[in-house]
Amino acid sequence: MRRTARDLITVAAIALALGVFSAGALGAASVSRDSKNCIACHEEATPGIVADWRKSAHARVTMNEALGKSKLKRRVSAVEPPEALKAVVVGCAECHNINPKDHKDTFDHNAYQVHVIVTPKDCATCHPTEVTQYGRNLMAYARTNLRNNPVYHGLAKEVNGIHGYDGETITRREPSAATNLESCDFCHGSTVEVAGTETRETIMEEMDFPILKGWPNQGVGRVNPDGSRGACSACHARHHFSIEVARKPYTCSECHKGPDVPAYRVYMVSKHGNIFSSLQHSWDFNAVPWVVGKHFTAPTCATCHVSLVTSEGGYVVAKRTHQMNDRSEWRLFGLIYAHAHPKSPDTTIIKNKAGLPLPTELTGEPVSAFLIDAKERENRRLTMQELCFACHSSGWVEGRFKQLAATIRETNEKTLTATKLLLKAWERGAARGLVQGDSIFNEAIERKWTEAWLFYANSIRFSSAMCGADYGVFANGRWYLAKTIRELQDWVEFKTK
Amino acid sequence: MRRTARDLITVAAIALALGVFSAGALGAASVSRDSKNCIACHEEATPGIVADWRKSAHARVTMNEALGKSKLKRRVSAVEPPEALKAVVVGCAECHNINPKDHKDTFDHNAYQVHVIVTPKDCATCHPTEVTQYGRNLMAYARTNLRNNPVYHGLAKEVNGIHGYDGETITRREPSAATNLESCDFCHGSTVEVAGTETRETIMEEMDFPILKGWPNQGVGRVNPDGSRGACSACHARHHFSIEVARKPYTCSECHKGPDVPAYRVYMVSKHGNIFSSLQHSWDFNAVPWVVGKHFTAPTCATCHVSLVTSEGGYVVAKRTHQMNDRSEWRLFGLIYAHAHPKSPDTTIIKNKAGLPLPTELTGEPVSAFLIDAKERENRRLTMQELCFACHSSGWVEGRFKQLAATIRETNEKTLTATKLLLKAWERGAARGLVQGDSIFNEAIERKWTEAWLFYANSIRFSSAMCGADYGVFANGRWYLAKTIRELQDWVEFKTK
Amino acid sequence: MRRTARDLITVAAIALALGVFSAGALGAASVSRDSKNCIACHEEATPGIVADWRKSAHARVTMNEALGKSKLKRRVSAVEPPEALKAVVVGCAECHNINPKDHKDTFDHNAYQVHVIVTPKDCATCHPTEVTQYGRNLMAYARTNLRNNPVYHGLAKEVNGIHGYDGETITRREPSAATNLESCDFCHGSTVEVAGTETRETIMEEMDFPILKGWPNQGVGRVNPDGSRGACSACHARHHFSIEVARKPYTCSECHKGPDVPAYRVYMVSKHGNIFSSLQHSWDFNAVPWVVGKHFTAPTCATCHVSLVTSEGGYVVAKRTHQMNDRSEWRLFGLIYAHAHPKSPDTTIIKNKAGLPLPTELTGEPVSAFLIDAKERENRRLTMQELCFACHSSGWVEGRFKQLAATIRETNEKTLTATKLLLKAWERGAARGLVQGDSIFNEAIERKWTEAWLFYANSIRFSSAMCGADYGVFANGRWYLAKTIRELQDWVEFKTK
Repeated sequence: MRRTARDLITVAAIALALGVFSAGALGAASVSRDSKNCIACHEEATPGIVADWRKSAHARVTMNEALGKSKLKRRVSAVEPPEALKAVVVGCAECHNINPKDHKDTFDHNAYQVHVIVTPKDCATCHPTEVTQYGRNLMAYARTNLRNNPVYHGLAKEVNGIHGYDGETITRREPSAATNLESCDFCHGSTVEVAGTETRETIMEEMDFPILKGWPNQGVGRVNPDGSRGACSACHARHHFSIEVARKPYTCSECHKGPDVPAYRVYMVSKHGNIFSSLQHSWDFNAVPWVVGKHFTAPTCATCHVSLVTSEGGYVVAKRTHQMNDRSEWRLFGLIYAHAHPKSPDTTIIKNKAGLPLPTELTGEPVSAFLIDAKERENRRLTMQELCFACHSSGWVEGRFKQLAATIRETNEKTLTATKLLLKAWERGAARGLVQGDSIFNEAIERKWTEAWLFYANSIRFSSAMCGADYGVFANGRWYLAKTIRELQDWVEFKTK
Repeated sequence: MRRTARDLITVAAIALALGVFSAGALGAASVSRDSKNCIACHEEATPGIVADWRKSAHARVTMNEALGKSKLKRRVSAVEPPEALKAVVVGCAECHNINPKDHKDTFDHNAYQVHVIVTPKDCATCHPTEVTQYGRNLMAYARTNLRNNPVYHGLAKEVNGIHGYDGETITRREPSAATNLESCDFCHGSTVEVAGTETRETIMEEMDFPILKGWPNQGVGRVNPDGSRGACSACHARHHFSIEVARKPYTCSECHKGPDVPAYRVYMVSKHGNIFSSLQHSWDFNAVPWVVGKHFTAPTCATCHVSLVTSEGGYVVAKRTHQMNDRSEWRLFGLIYAHAHPKSPDTTIIKNKAGLPLPTELTGEPVSAFLIDAKERENRRLTMQELCFACHSSGWVEGRFKQLAATIRETNEKTLTATKLLLKAWERGAARGLVQGDSIFNEAIERKWTEAWLFYANSIRFSSAMCGADYGVFANGRWYLAKTIRELQDWVEFKTK
Repeated sequence: MRRTARDLITVAAIALALGVFSAGALGAASVSRDSKNCIACHEEATPGIVADWRKSAHARVTMNEALGKSKLKRRVSAVEPPEALKAVVVGCAECHNINPKDHKDTFDHNAYQVHVIVTPKDCATCHPTEVTQYGRNLMAYARTNLRNNPVYHGLAKEVNGIHGYDGETITRREPSAATNLESCDFCHGSTVEVAGTETRETIMEEMDFPILKGWPNQGVGRVNPDGSRGACSACHARHHFSIEVARKPYTCSECHKGPDVPAYRVYMVSKHGNIFSSLQHSWDFNAVPWVVGKHFTAPTCATCHVSLVTSEGGYVVAKRTHQMNDRSEWRLFGLIYAHAHPKSPDTTIIKNKAGLPLPTELTGEPVSAFLIDAKERENRRLTMQELCFACHSSGWVEGRFKQLAATIRETNEKTLTATKLLLKAWERGAARGLVQGDSIFNEAIERKWTEAWLFYANSIRFSSAMCGADYGVFANGRWYLAKTIRELQDWVEFKTK
């Protein structure tokens, strides 16, 4: 139930009837008539987001102005945007009322055909290149790849499931939809579906709204009611859509901070992270293009993985990408062994010799047919190194990349050691796993093995790749990996002797 | 021993004798004569805090000016403050020399009756509403509720005690007063008592000071020498008393960051925390009232739990409160099971069926007579939701609150599973606990059980309530809770077979 | 392989030939001719660092100007710097071309004798006092003390080594040089040696460069090709060398954040850390001297351990030091028991009764002959307390120091308890350690014992010393130390019964 401020209705109703708003109250004169009507009520209904939007580039720049900028300065990639959008700024209606027929979540709202969920397909109206690139990104398939991979779906169920105890054994019920939404699916994305309509009281009057399953959600691999994949708002926080937010590492940290994927934590103990933390107040996070040394003096996540970066002289150090892994040759995390990136963002198509949808065998051997080849790996490495060279000598850069290659080999080797110990436990019947057709994640000893690679080997590689050494030694890296191997040994020796 | 700067004495003595100070040296002309005398010496004795105070609103605004502001802009709640305070700014003497007879720690200091410890009762001179509200807050009883609850006091002694080993068994001495002061009591508060007087060398001359037991301390439930409870300086850091500091989450993090109460960590991986971190430099943390969307574009801890928040149009989204839990229906942390908030901030009055001062039974069943009822729970939930509605739609908000309700149920259920395993261990004599009349926190297996609820179930609920999913999955949540249940099973099976 | 931009050659070649650059393009007119020549190419070769350097004091201030400042404001300590440096700012050549004969890494680069690695000996040209002080710092010996101490070197090998499993036992290969460089040596420092010459493609043409072993590295105890120890760039990040960066705690956090040395984490939950985080935007991190209360209102790491701090009246609260431990009486971390600081930064000279290079016996008894005496301890304590007194009363400060003393005693006592349990395991043959002449770090139970002191006792002391209570209770302190003792007991009882 909402507060009801009936006096608001009068004000808004009058305003709607008159259709007259000052530029000061509703934004620049180039706000569309439809958006002005949205704002008339939402200024009071949801004042926070209206005020937030007013601070955005969307509220200030028309498509014509955006297209008028030189190529390096341009923030839109559309060449021929719809005529109706050209002279207006991007207000509520330009996003929430667009493509109504594609959206199963479209509903009638004060005579407008509105959808709650703005999707990549909607954003592609002005930003088509970014949306296309994003579609080639593993992140666009984050939900699909988790849900449709029985190994990983099994892990998710064991983590989120509701465990009981009947006095003899541990039982497990399936996790609830609510729990999935606020755990794995929070980052990986939900499938949003319309499940009917309901009437809600609002500050204006009773209104009908769609009932949305899988909502709220902003996961990067969200499957939307228009069939598209992803949520641009995962990184471009509503309703300011600030490029500053997307460029700062805090955004990435929403999903890349935990022990399974500690990119943010590693970054923050690196020299780069230190300089960012210390001097960010003097940087320009809104400039396009982003000029190395001028606008920033150390990279953030976006610098290396996403942004268009140039020198002050205009040399393009790196082109903008939203594929995000096209500057990375190795997939360092999430799987049992590090390996070259998969060719397709849809990893459910991979099959290893054991028939499992995994990019390596259980021994670490890569399933090469599904992975990028040496040439593509080199391309990606060289693309990334161009960014390093902007501040570092060849000797420095190549030294670092050699260290990473050694670390990938050694962490894979240590993971194999942990795996051999678990196989021994299964063989001897001390635990029940692949050999017995049982889950490989449910027993305490299997959890310990999982941590060996999911947390520790993974963290060591991150700490190597991003030069955040401190995290990879005692924080959650080599110390714990070596300790885990010894504990696995301790347990196996006890149980099998 | 202090440095002795005898030349300072001359300067200060002359200054005192003349009673003449420039406004530049001692602050505005409206600094009281008494405070000017304090500053004359402390400018050199403790230059840091004098300079800090000069930056404060206290140093710039007289009570008359404060009272002259419109109601929403006013920062004082006194209606009839003492006449003597009206025309002066709030200097040293206005806080440290006030209410001398109430203060057992009052001592003679250069002919002034001074007390070191400024208490909520002192602050109530100008801020009575806030102090009254704070008195209804669980935090005001943080010390009492910990010390006078034998279950929790037992946990504290097991954590802080000094363990020895005599070759056969582990011994435990009581923790020292020093250790208690810098562990539990640091946040929960000490009892400050005067234990005599001592003479100390100062930069001026030898002087007498009270010997204070339980000092230094700024814990939120501190029992003060005037009988009052709390320390406003816990959140309003001396001597700037900046509202900016109190509104930023770093303040809360001093006590709410560890695995037992990781509110700060959860916030920082939420979208709210990301936006705060990224854009705080452009927000106004000193404005009163605090206007959503204008002064800030995402909530901090204070926004949701304390602050007066309005829309730009002047609509009051939330009234200021210092009770802090009056917008929260559930008590998520600190106890074995989540439950509705207790009615009284003094929780030592609660008794469950087993006679323990706990708000639930060991099975999780709430001890409802001592807890707020459904109506009050709804009131609190709606008050909180008003803040959400400032930026989010009804569907979004209600979806989130449903998730939290499910999570409370499910984490309580998992905690019960862990508890059943421990009960089994006690029944079978594999460990010694309630059944044997032994501590429930001293053995290794009991520690593991404690982590199940104190760390993991608790963190999952926080991560749900504050939408910081990442923390609730692998960081310190579902992964570890499920793993702990499996490890308890492993241990119990081994010990009881 | 680098991008080749042959057109750049033309531009640079012409520029070099003409020797004419505008002040705008190459910095102030007082940039030396040699440095201008460096910049001519590196402006395009490594644009990030050239732009970074332009923001530095080095790029703006000549030695003559630096020497002209009053003593408290001066940032250089040289009295008679080389004549050639006096009239120019500190550009590329002034650091990378200096002392060519001392540098084994000197090579011919476009007719200049250049070295890649700028060392403390190079920095001493203008900052001799700081370099001398740093040489008395434990940090200058961080590599030596780790590598040449067989106990600690043994720990490092067990952490970094590559573990295998042959079906029966765990094997261990020596860690690779690459792994050492990005783990222990990353912070402790490498030994950098020239191992030949190689030809590399550059954006200009093919050039010869030295092959450097132990590179890249910026560890604090780096052994340099000119025989000096240390890397000023560890804290003074290249090429801005901003005093702001060195004064902010993020710099220290690069090496002091992990569970073995969590100074940064403790600081961030302290009141000091809260005030820093909340108000740093309003502080002046570039002012020299640093005036307490005016330029900052709470200390950072540098304030207490390094910086020159004065009152606004010019009273010197603390002199600048780069010894860094000369305000600290206790060595709180890294060793099994806390103890007074060693006299010499070279700790490999210490021998305890058991003949081990440790500053205490295995029972905690200090090896006093090698440690600072009571008088020096008092001196250091009083020096530190002067900083506290700038904002705190004597009672407050002495209360805190008493708490620390108690905590050192009690954590040492608990560590002894853990050690006794391990000794029992060794005696009974449940584990193989000193008694059996085996590593004391390789078995699971030995790892648990190591965590008792390296992580938990250590963290408790930090949290006491820096008033960050939250970290020392549940985060990584008393809870885990007491739990570890109980788990050691559990394991020993099971294995020895």
